[in-house]
Amino acid sequence: MIAASTVVRVRYAETDQMGVAYHAHYFAWFEVGRCELLRKAGATYRDLEAQGILLPVIEAHCRYLQPGRYDDELEVRTTGRLASPARVAFDYEIVRRADGARLATGRTVHAAVTPAGRPCRLPASIRSLLA
Amino acid sequence: MIAASTVVRVRYAETDQMGVAYHAHYFAWFEVGRCELLRKAGATYRDLEAQGILLPVIEAHCRYLQPGRYDDELEVRTTGRLASPARVAFDYEIVRRADGARLATGRTVHAAVTPAGRPCRLPASIRSLLA
Amino acid sequence: MIAASTVVRVRYAETDQMGVAYHAHYFAWFEVGRCELLRKAGATYRDLEAQGILLPVIEAHCRYLQPGRYDDELEVRTTGRLASPARVAFDYEIVRRADGARLATGRTVHAAVTPAGRPCRLPASIRSLLA
Amino acid sequence: MIAASTVVRVRYAETDQMGVAYHAHYFAWFEVGRCELLRKAGATYRDLEAQGILLPVIEAHCRYLQPGRYDDELEVRTTGRLASPARVAFDYEIVRRADGARLATGRTVHAAVTPAGRPCRLPASIRSLLA
Repeated sequence: MIAASTVVRVRYAETDQMGVAYHAHYFAWFEVGRCELLRKAGATYRDLEAQGILLPVIEAHCRYLQPGRYDDELEVRTTGRLASPARVAFDYEIVRRADGARLATGRTVHAAVTPAGRPCRLPASIRSLLA
Repeated sequence: MIAASTVVRVRYAETDQMGVAYHAHYFAWFEVGRCELLRKAGATYRDLEAQGILLPVIEAHCRYLQPGRYDDELEVRTTGRLASPARVAFDYEIVRRADGARLATGRTVHAAVTPAGRPCRLPASIRSLLA
Repeated sequence: MIAASTVVRVRYAETDQMGVAYHAHYFAWFEVGRCELLRKAGATYRDLEAQGILLPVIEAHCRYLQPGRYDDELEVRTTGRLASPARVAFDYEIVRRADGARLATGRTVHAAVTPAGRPCRLPASIRSLLA
Repeated sequence: MIAASTVVRVRYAETDQMGVAYHAHYFAWFEVGRCELLRKAGATYRDLEAQGILLPVIEAHCRYLQPGRYDDELEVRTTGRLASPARVAFDYEIVRRADGARLATGRTVHAAVTPAGRPCRLPASIRSLLA
């Protein structure tokens, strides 16, 4: 299991008329979280795709505890682990930096596939990283 | 429990470089589904907000079975039910019209709150609709 | 020159905390407008890409006259014309169906390119359509 | 006139099936640019709204020179200037950090309005900042 933390700031584009961040954008922040986690581990998702391995999301979940607001700095805490030789799972926490409040927790599960959509094993380097 | 069906077409804006619909957009389509469900039941979400009742998402989940692609017409099948006097749950299926393939299933749970964010009961009209 | 009209409904996802539709989403609605225009003319953008011709946006402009709001039904009126053998320009009007108010006008210009990004001529069928 | 620079990284969510950043997202990056410009000048847009002054976009324009790609770090260079006592204009350049290539240039014009949508003068502090 590996862990990493990165920060996003809520954009006006990401708010809705309730005056809070629209719930679907948390999944885009989760994406930022797992990409930074892979980068810090020495393996960017861009490189993975260049090697012909895609990681489409096969399951996504989020629990919303407190609303994020425009201009809030949010820490995305991500952990990743191998769920099988062909699957990865990431867990996320979204924490508001100003007061440490936990706004959301979530999870995504990804299947390794070829560009043609066929399931494949993750490269050994990623497997050992996440094992 | 009430049910409704509506159709969205995948926009180019909703695709990603994998050549499929980006996973977070399914949650926006779920939103279209539940708003049409409420509309067909005679109670638009716009009216609900005008009465001072918001329905923020407190939990969201999606399982992705097959990728949606640009220009696909997708049927969003939605059912809604009262989870408590102050909570509603919606279940979704995303079905590709061309071949009836089921692309995704999902669920969102919503808490009724006042504009100030305080929990409140759903109006009796909505409660009886979803009971 | 060809013209077409299509309708989109403002999603909650597309609002911002000003209580109106976020300005960048108008460009996604313009996309819906021009794709429906091509479809009505007998040539979907999907097919065009399948033939190896992409139409990336090289210029985009929008003037906002009145705000669009959640749940508004908006008519996207689109006209298209050949700007050169390798360029197309589309003009748009966004009109609120409830009262006919004109909310925005815009334009996008597109260059025909191959998947490798090399400029190319539009197919004769499209050229004659838009001439 | 004031100027500022900030960096965004292209998210997977922001790509489309052409394999490049979807054109409408540049307007969200412009938003990041002007908010950081105001912040660096000592006046956040959040505070401005808290004082009852909104700055809706009344005109937006972008010229796309080269495509931005997933994971690219993009510098958003923004300058702002008073267009009238009740209007602000921002100019933008999007530059890829890896090689300094200029990907896009743009402009947005904003009207100062009250929450009720009535035109108003910008606060003297902002006017002197941008004059």
